[in-house]
Amino acid sequence: MTKSKKIFLSEKEMPKQWYNIAADLPGTLNPPLGPDGQPIGPEALAPVFPMNLIEQEVSTQRWIDIPEKVMEMLSIWRPSPLVRAYALEEALGTPARIYYKNESVSPAGSHKPNTAVAQAYYNKEFGINKLCTETGAGQWGSALSFACSLLDMECKVFMVRVSFDQKPFRKMMMQTWGGTCIASPSTETQAGRDVLAQYPDTPGSLGIAISEAVEAAVTDPTGQTRYSLGSVLNHVMLHQTIIGLEAKKQLKKVGEKLPDIVIACAGGGSNFAGLSFPFIQDKIHGAEMEVIAVEPHSCPTLTKAPFAYDHGDIAKMTPLLAMNSLGHGFIPPPIHAGGLRYHGMSPLVSHAVKEGLVTPEAIHQLECYEAGMLFARTEGIIPAPETTHAIASTIRQARKAKDEGKEKVILFNFSGHGFMDLVGYDKYLNGELRNHELGDAEFKEFTEVLKQYPSPIL
Amino acid sequence: MTKSKKIFLSEKEMPKQWYNIAADLPGTLNPPLGPDGQPIGPEALAPVFPMNLIEQEVSTQRWIDIPEKVMEMLSIWRPSPLVRAYALEEALGTPARIYYKNESVSPAGSHKPNTAVAQAYYNKEFGINKLCTETGAGQWGSALSFACSLLDMECKVFMVRVSFDQKPFRKMMMQTWGGTCIASPSTETQAGRDVLAQYPDTPGSLGIAISEAVEAAVTDPTGQTRYSLGSVLNHVMLHQTIIGLEAKKQLKKVGEKLPDIVIACAGGGSNFAGLSFPFIQDKIHGAEMEVIAVEPHSCPTLTKAPFAYDHGDIAKMTPLLAMNSLGHGFIPPPIHAGGLRYHGMSPLVSHAVKEGLVTPEAIHQLECYEAGMLFARTEGIIPAPETTHAIASTIRQARKAKDEGKEKVILFNFSGHGFMDLVGYDKYLNGELRNHELGDAEFKEFTEVLKQYPSPIL
Repeated sequence: MTKSKKIFLSEKEMPKQWYNIAADLPGTLNPPLGPDGQPIGPEALAPVFPMNLIEQEVSTQRWIDIPEKVMEMLSIWRPSPLVRAYALEEALGTPARIYYKNESVSPAGSHKPNTAVAQAYYNKEFGINKLCTETGAGQWGSALSFACSLLDMECKVFMVRVSFDQKPFRKMMMQTWGGTCIASPSTETQAGRDVLAQYPDTPGSLGIAISEAVEAAVTDPTGQTRYSLGSVLNHVMLHQTIIGLEAKKQLKKVGEKLPDIVIACAGGGSNFAGLSFPFIQDKIHGAEMEVIAVEPHSCPTLTKAPFAYDHGDIAKMTPLLAMNSLGHGFIPPPIHAGGLRYHGMSPLVSHAVKEGLVTPEAIHQLECYEAGMLFARTEGIIPAPETTHAIASTIRQARKAKDEGKEKVILFNFSGHGFMDLVGYDKYLNGELRNHELGDAEFKEFTEVLKQYPSPIL
Repeated sequence: MTKSKKIFLSEKEMPKQWYNIAADLPGTLNPPLGPDGQPIGPEALAPVFPMNLIEQEVSTQRWIDIPEKVMEMLSIWRPSPLVRAYALEEALGTPARIYYKNESVSPAGSHKPNTAVAQAYYNKEFGINKLCTETGAGQWGSALSFACSLLDMECKVFMVRVSFDQKPFRKMMMQTWGGTCIASPSTETQAGRDVLAQYPDTPGSLGIAISEAVEAAVTDPTGQTRYSLGSVLNHVMLHQTIIGLEAKKQLKKVGEKLPDIVIACAGGGSNFAGLSFPFIQDKIHGAEMEVIAVEPHSCPTLTKAPFAYDHGDIAKMTPLLAMNSLGHGFIPPPIHAGGLRYHGMSPLVSHAVKEGLVTPEAIHQLECYEAGMLFARTEGIIPAPETTHAIASTIRQARKAKDEGKEKVILFNFSGHGFMDLVGYDKYLNGELRNHELGDAEFKEFTEVLKQYPSPIL
């Protein structure tokens, strides 16, 4: 063995604090607004989230201790390996050194459990014994079911109908961990019943499912149920920063300085924030680095949508958040990267893009699947459709480094494996997939709704 | 963090040689026999396997070097973690220390790639550019497709019809790695056509699929195609010993001596041999240790079937092997642990059982699923149905240790994850599964065929 592929940390080397980028971001962060257009206080969120998580949501403390019990749960799969992609480099003939952080090693198969175990823990500490959430493709619902099973809590997941029907295995995963999974829109909530009355055959959407999950949490008569969100919010980004903090230590172990390019796909922003925020801290302090957030052309939140105030869900149950948004009524085309089909984007990620710290990039799904195939046949692991976006961008950068003859160091986030998403590969191989571009007319129609809300500080 | 769950080795610490138990087993090994009942020489296997693997098959050399290129491919996921199952121990209230070797971290999700990359390598070295094989539940076909993709070789997989229809995701995995997967029996081979003529609606069996794969390999007019088998044979057991060799180093790292109990499930025997053979070496030399091979009651190869000469496949294309066999025409009931539904057993494992070095144990599937659920909800990882057999036996031993108040060290093989087998869990949760016992009449009927063959030395 001349060269090691995988760079491990021991459990003892796991970071003991999360990094809160709110402490370092330049510019003024726009606060969440209530229905009256005024900033809301923490207490307004109390029916939805436990106060200890709300405190994290609004915190500007730079480093936040990871509780011991959370560390213990994380250590089921963390620290995750950092891997040098020698075989991919060779296939591309690039002088770039490509590293990926393998978050697919978690029991649910993606980075999502990083925040799921933390959120379940804080809720339990606060006396909550049941969590409600929504899920699109099923990664988040699986992750929260997994976390709740470890802490002996109940978990109820509203899964977007079209995914519920197409991906029965995800539901089975949740049930194996003791979670309950029902198709959304459902008849269990007012929000669901309203949608069904108007559109009985709707395939559902993440926006609708969020409305249902929030309603189910806040109307629970026991008062011991809360809602949990797998992306977008500040505390979710916080919990994911363990990814980048580990990667930093691992790069150091093999004598690499900071990477030249950091890449992750971005749907709601959590795996992107998780890898990149600890590196963006260096960029804020002067390090030269390109940080790329990759999204599908069919859901161009960062590359096309405005930075504006909008709701996170279709029933407008969430506060107004300052973020890039295609409008809360946006229904994305049926691409296979379900985790990237969200109308909004994490306010912290949106802010970092606005400040020029992050370069957004849109890539079509055919290029992404081609990249995923090359990765599977060189590095061996089949990536999730979402993850193929980061791989496609990495390949672009590696080819550019080759053209320029530069020894760039590229780090990307391997956010999840594709074992539960093989239908997409099958369709790709059978030539049944096509690219989707969001047309200008559609774009205008969906973003129209944003005009009624206050403008954020730019 | 007070206690580390996962014990890692660096890639540099990976064992550099495989362990060949043929060098140490007591008693006389029975040679494979040809159609005339006489021992066959290596040359008789040459149309089926490359000579370098045949040499390994008959070798009695104790240690065999792992080629550098094989080490490199193995290092995509190896060394695999050894994990202390603290949460499971706590749930059982046992004084036993339970460790499991997590072989589910390979790209195909099981231990199978350990031999797949080795077999693909030796074939390629020998000038072969295409491999044919069979697969039941799909683990082996995926593993060989993965290995062939790394070496740019063709791979053709005959998949048992019933699994082909029930598990389309496995086929998609193989295709993503560039493999071709067709349902068996097929019209592509004489063996397949013969079966279809007689039983057009047959669900297929592993025995039929083996016949097809061997025929497809030996009749290929280019002469550059060979057959590959994922279990049973001596060289397959050899390649899997890296599991136990790593586990030994890892136990040493945390100050454990030899385990008191070593447990793995056994279908064809390869994950069992992989973990246990390096420990059985110590047992042969006097160490006190219980080594348990767990199988389903519905396919009781080790606990009920005789040690006899039999063919590995239904069309009797393989040589006669001395092994525990339920008869090559045995059709097991449709339990979900597809990898444990084989009529035969590795001759080396059978021999070790015969010599009293291994204790066989049969467990019913409901107890196994219950064990799998407990594991998923404590340790977090969803096990393959095959793996739940090892877990169920571990739980029995851990409870026994509790009853006896003994601090036993139990090591078991976590041979694969259950992401592709969630339908079994779903049926279990819905109460749709039942136990299957092999009746005496059926047993007599299937083993009748064995009487016509020579008797092995006992």
